[in-house]
Amino acid sequence: MPAHAESEALLRLLQSGAPASALRRLLDSHGTACAALAAGSRDWASHGLRATCHAAIRNPEPQQLAHAMRWLDDPAHHLLGWRDAAYPPLLQRIPTPPAMLFVAGDPALLWLPAVAIVGSRAATAGGCANAAQFATALAKANLCITSGMAAGIDAAAHTAALDAGGVTVAVLGTGPDIAYPSRHRPLRDRIAAHGAVVSEHPPGTGPLRQHFPSRNRILAGLSLGTVVIEAAEQSGALISARLAAEAGREVFALPGSIHNPMARGCHRLIREGAQLVASPDEVLEVLAPLAADLAHALRGSLEASCGAAQTTLPEPSLGDAAYNLLWQALGHDPTGMDALVERTGLTTAEVSSMLLALELNGRIAAEHGRYARIGR
Amino acid sequence: MPAHAESEALLRLLQSGAPASALRRLLDSHGTACAALAAGSRDWASHGLRATCHAAIRNPEPQQLAHAMRWLDDPAHHLLGWRDAAYPPLLQRIPTPPAMLFVAGDPALLWLPAVAIVGSRAATAGGCANAAQFATALAKANLCITSGMAAGIDAAAHTAALDAGGVTVAVLGTGPDIAYPSRHRPLRDRIAAHGAVVSEHPPGTGPLRQHFPSRNRILAGLSLGTVVIEAAEQSGALISARLAAEAGREVFALPGSIHNPMARGCHRLIREGAQLVASPDEVLEVLAPLAADLAHALRGSLEASCGAAQTTLPEPSLGDAAYNLLWQALGHDPTGMDALVERTGLTTAEVSSMLLALELNGRIAAEHGRYARIGR
Repeated sequence: MPAHAESEALLRLLQSGAPASALRRLLDSHGTACAALAAGSRDWASHGLRATCHAAIRNPEPQQLAHAMRWLDDPAHHLLGWRDAAYPPLLQRIPTPPAMLFVAGDPALLWLPAVAIVGSRAATAGGCANAAQFATALAKANLCITSGMAAGIDAAAHTAALDAGGVTVAVLGTGPDIAYPSRHRPLRDRIAAHGAVVSEHPPGTGPLRQHFPSRNRILAGLSLGTVVIEAAEQSGALISARLAAEAGREVFALPGSIHNPMARGCHRLIREGAQLVASPDEVLEVLAPLAADLAHALRGSLEASCGAAQTTLPEPSLGDAAYNLLWQALGHDPTGMDALVERTGLTTAEVSSMLLALELNGRIAAEHGRYARIGR
Repeated sequence: MPAHAESEALLRLLQSGAPASALRRLLDSHGTACAALAAGSRDWASHGLRATCHAAIRNPEPQQLAHAMRWLDDPAHHLLGWRDAAYPPLLQRIPTPPAMLFVAGDPALLWLPAVAIVGSRAATAGGCANAAQFATALAKANLCITSGMAAGIDAAAHTAALDAGGVTVAVLGTGPDIAYPSRHRPLRDRIAAHGAVVSEHPPGTGPLRQHFPSRNRILAGLSLGTVVIEAAEQSGALISARLAAEAGREVFALPGSIHNPMARGCHRLIREGAQLVASPDEVLEVLAPLAADLAHALRGSLEASCGAAQTTLPEPSLGDAAYNLLWQALGHDPTGMDALVERTGLTTAEVSSMLLALELNGRIAAEHGRYARIGR
């Protein structure tokens, strides 16, 4: 089917205001948005779409639709649906993946092993320097630097990654065409030109308070781990960190002086189990094996049929003994990381790495940071 | 028996150079040092004392002995033997308690709930200010502040505790009469006058490198918990912290900037399981229930016969359900804190507090941070 028609169908589904979970189920049932649109009211209702959504699908708001379609005319702009082969594999595995993603830039970059660097908008100069130091070193180690393009830590991380010649991805709470704060327009354009700017909201969507926490789940979901540089006691960065932990990803936090209020959020995370890191090498030590497994899994996926939404991997690249140990420790009831570490006697890093490989292989499912065998 | 004769007998045993473990066994067998001295070579040998020690006991170096006895003539100076009713109860419970303790000041202060505040001799000004802040607040909360009277963090903690009108105890690696560094003479005298200066080495013993690590076990052993304020990657404070953990005591560490080399030791401790604390209240929250249990146990001990070396407590002051849960989780094989927390579903703080009560009650034994039921 023509890409144009599929994009328009996806946009009509999105504009209906139906929740992402219902839209994902609809796309899973029908394979394409065009087929989902053709299925009609009874089918939509059976997938949990309410009557108001049906009306909106049939009569989409024409200006919004036209605006989004014009935005997609640019060859650098993309709309990835839930069943699209290009949908980022790590994002598929979070508890609530978005039904579609708008991308300004190269969508292939969303498949790279990535680390989120996040923190306070009101960061100290020292915090911004630390963000730049970590982003530079991790970008040079071939990790994609993801962040939220906010003031403070986020902007420092994106800028340093770009300056280092690395790859960076911004996940926005606005439409992908909006720079927020507006002084970040040049930064947004630079990220779109050399990396990717990502949003689940259609072009033209302004900064709405309620969109920012949900943005953080995408940021955490695209990344193997999240590094929190500076965060006050109430900070969006802490939400990113919790969502990362819930998705079974690594969480790192930088400590700071007990007199720096911007260190309090990090200290709270460390108390709650985040890994204390004082250098980029300590982050790399944990993420490098996960990145290697991800690269392996994606190679498998590229060799497999391109239409498959699930990546495939012949068998996790793990020693048989450890792999069997973990497989025995996993049941069909979701089991937390702590219990798996306890049952296997392996380290958290080993278990994390093996779980990711099993997940990417489609052998297990992760939900809310708990793991269970799938079917067979 | 006259105190003078018992002190001289203890000193002769100590001067023999026999290890503390052998001397403790000898005192356990005979009750007093006088009786132990009277027992003779065959008995000494059966307790592990070598022939060179026998000779030294029979012919003590007269000048050393006279110097120590003269020091003990001062009514403010004391020698507490292993079987002495005044021997500090928490110190009894470490893996390797000293066979005797020299005390300049009030030995009763060694029974107070105490917290060790330790750190680098080369602390930053900020670190010393933090030490003073914690010592002031914890001393005002009626905890005795123990430290090692070294430069830097130790001196800042002692001084702040004295200035706050609190109680402070210095544990020395030299004899109790020596100020090291020598500029700490006024500080030593102030601590001896208002608190206590403690050492396992006889008066006149100078600063010997090998005595300082073993000094740290006494410091940790007298205290319910140890707070490390600033420590380089190789620091005596880390030894204190490990010995505290091995003795089943709480370990706290203050985080700092990732660029402060004096924060590295603290960060390492936090990674290894020490509790990250950013305020004295966070220390108090953990130690207050332990201090209450200790006070309860010591009340029991004072009511019991004064000759008993073991404190007694009618029954741990704990809810029956939680107490039974922990008792079932404890076996006769030593079990680590993590396993007890896992088995009981209680928090670490709850388990710590209950273990201390059980220990003080003589129901369980702690060794190297592992716990086991005793006998019955």
